[in-house]
Amino acid sequence: MLGGRPLFGEPLHVGRPNLPDRRRFGELLDCMFENRWFTNYGPLVRVLQSRLQEKLGVRHCIPMCNGTIALELAYRAMGFEGEVVVPSFTFVATAHALEWQRITPVFCDIRESDFTIDPACIDALVTQRTTGIVGVHVYGNPCDHEAISVVASKHGLPVVYDAAHAFMSEAGGASVCRMGALSVLSFHATKFFSTFEGGAIATDDDEIAERVRLMMNFGFAGREKDRVDYVGTNGKMTEVCAAMGLAMLEQVEQIREVNAANHAVYGEALAGIPGVRLAQPSPALEMHNWQYVIALVDEEAYGLSRDQLVRVLEAENVLARRYFHPGCHRMEPYRRSFEESGRSLPVTDRLSGMVLSLPNGESVLPEAVRWIGDTVRLAGTKAGEIRAKLKEGGHA
Amino acid sequence: MLGGRPLFGEPLHVGRPNLPDRRRFGELLDCMFENRWFTNYGPLVRVLQSRLQEKLGVRHCIPMCNGTIALELAYRAMGFEGEVVVPSFTFVATAHALEWQRITPVFCDIRESDFTIDPACIDALVTQRTTGIVGVHVYGNPCDHEAISVVASKHGLPVVYDAAHAFMSEAGGASVCRMGALSVLSFHATKFFSTFEGGAIATDDDEIAERVRLMMNFGFAGREKDRVDYVGTNGKMTEVCAAMGLAMLEQVEQIREVNAANHAVYGEALAGIPGVRLAQPSPALEMHNWQYVIALVDEEAYGLSRDQLVRVLEAENVLARRYFHPGCHRMEPYRRSFEESGRSLPVTDRLSGMVLSLPNGESVLPEAVRWIGDTVRLAGTKAGEIRAKLKEGGHA
Repeated sequence: MLGGRPLFGEPLHVGRPNLPDRRRFGELLDCMFENRWFTNYGPLVRVLQSRLQEKLGVRHCIPMCNGTIALELAYRAMGFEGEVVVPSFTFVATAHALEWQRITPVFCDIRESDFTIDPACIDALVTQRTTGIVGVHVYGNPCDHEAISVVASKHGLPVVYDAAHAFMSEAGGASVCRMGALSVLSFHATKFFSTFEGGAIATDDDEIAERVRLMMNFGFAGREKDRVDYVGTNGKMTEVCAAMGLAMLEQVEQIREVNAANHAVYGEALAGIPGVRLAQPSPALEMHNWQYVIALVDEEAYGLSRDQLVRVLEAENVLARRYFHPGCHRMEPYRRSFEESGRSLPVTDRLSGMVLSLPNGESVLPEAVRWIGDTVRLAGTKAGEIRAKLKEGGHA
Repeated sequence: MLGGRPLFGEPLHVGRPNLPDRRRFGELLDCMFENRWFTNYGPLVRVLQSRLQEKLGVRHCIPMCNGTIALELAYRAMGFEGEVVVPSFTFVATAHALEWQRITPVFCDIRESDFTIDPACIDALVTQRTTGIVGVHVYGNPCDHEAISVVASKHGLPVVYDAAHAFMSEAGGASVCRMGALSVLSFHATKFFSTFEGGAIATDDDEIAERVRLMMNFGFAGREKDRVDYVGTNGKMTEVCAAMGLAMLEQVEQIREVNAANHAVYGEALAGIPGVRLAQPSPALEMHNWQYVIALVDEEAYGLSRDQLVRVLEAENVLARRYFHPGCHRMEPYRRSFEESGRSLPVTDRLSGMVLSLPNGESVLPEAVRWIGDTVRLAGTKAGEIRAKLKEGGHA
């Protein structure tokens, strides 16, 4: 940024995909071609399903084409309509999957401590039209299911969870996917566990699982051919994605170790930088995937805003992301109706201006983490110079 | 059925997938792993997109995760809401993709001659709430776009086409995908051209294409990171599916020849059977994929109903399918409101009771086609005996 070559020759991404063992993936592909079965609940999807069920300790974990379609299916299978309470501090798909089906997302604030929906804020948002509550296990941190359940029960509302970040997150001796009526997982390429694109609905409820299975296949009734019982869509995972999933599943423990080790190095590398601190996993977590490295930037103490630090890192070829910024309530499709509501989400607004997601995964070496730490530290000491430079360049 | 072993040792499916050249597919996979890019509009998807655009002669052909999600995106990008006129004689996804977004499908009858929406029936279905018309190029037969356009213009309604069957269908010197505001393709494993699961939206309209591209990626604005302009979903095709598509695209001419040759053999094999006739491609077609082999069974003249013939073929391990039966208007999610409307769809009801889709594709040898013909012929001559046998077995 202040002259010289970037620190990294190649961009260092947040969410650069972890790779499977190619030989293992190849074997599974051979299997698929021998079966001549490419989609429609094929044998590899069924094996993946049972492996996931074992891994998470849930009765059902139904693989799907992606996490967003899984969210849509989840909402539909729960009979959501009218309004649904959902945090604004989440990937926009959590809200879009409601709006896609003309359900109005009613945005709720989060807790400072762990970025998850604040149970104390839900009650005031419930109206006659409310049909459900969605929690998001942000960065793998489990929502406060007990407190959410109290307000949900009071109004007779079902609770579902967006667990896109939370594959292998455990709390209270079990997978967080056992909370609520169901949980939605994402297996996108950038996730800890990937099937290229993919997702799943996990639930212990046989009836919900049955409805999801029908709805993801056009509502076709299980036994009788050509009979359609439900409105549905195509949410099917292909065999080739299941092959990727099966290969990757053999490596998740190893990837978790790499992530955890990197996280520890980030902790050292960012220690003692005024105005920058690493968000720690929720104390409620007994185990998780360590994928998310979230720095919080306090502009006043650090000298640069989070967005200015993003530009510094970009100049060094470190592609840090603002997960999540802005809150969904400030995005074009939702902004106006939120403003009209006269509500405010102070914690979401403050934290979404501070969070910075840093690269992790097998492609990130500990040495790179240390360099990133040094860059962040150095940028803070040269904050004045950098602000001047950014002003020159026409940046705020 | 009348004793003895089934004709075929292994089931002969409608829509058994055609296979790619494994070596070619493997090269493309190597490419994908070298890129370390698995989804999110990657290089293979972009190459597939430009190949498809060339092949179809359209400005835009945007690959997606499947045909149903492509339909949903198409409807959303067109701003459909309220009611949309759509034929009932179609795969249920055409209607579901409306209902999924709380748009009411208003079912229209078809023409006897080519199974496509009857332009003469549309006008009476248009109300104040109607926002669009959907045509379906059933079995690749082109809709009568000129006549549909007249009624659409009268009411100021946009027209889109479900071209799931019509990859490489040409009429009037161009791909049928150039009709209307946009066309939706399906590349499901059972289709003529496959990407495992997949679909696309083809259009010559830059503005619609831009909206589709944004909506299929969560509404993220092209240039600015983290800015969401539209409600969207995840409609992205993965790189691995694009690899399959690129490999298959090299074989479509060859598969078309096989399909056409089989179609001709079916013609001979079914010739002169009383009450059974092969539906011929629309005379408007100048070129098509010959995938669909549709027999029409006239129970009175043949001696067996279409459904009884399905059972005979099943007993011989020939898995023929009733595409399309029943009409969408008779399916559970739509039945009641259709009945309440007091309307009727006589052509749809009659043809959906007669149609039978027979196996085609590279896995079907001409000899098998002749055996299927012989079976159909023989079953007609032994109709009485078979009906008695089915009655014994508890079938209607």
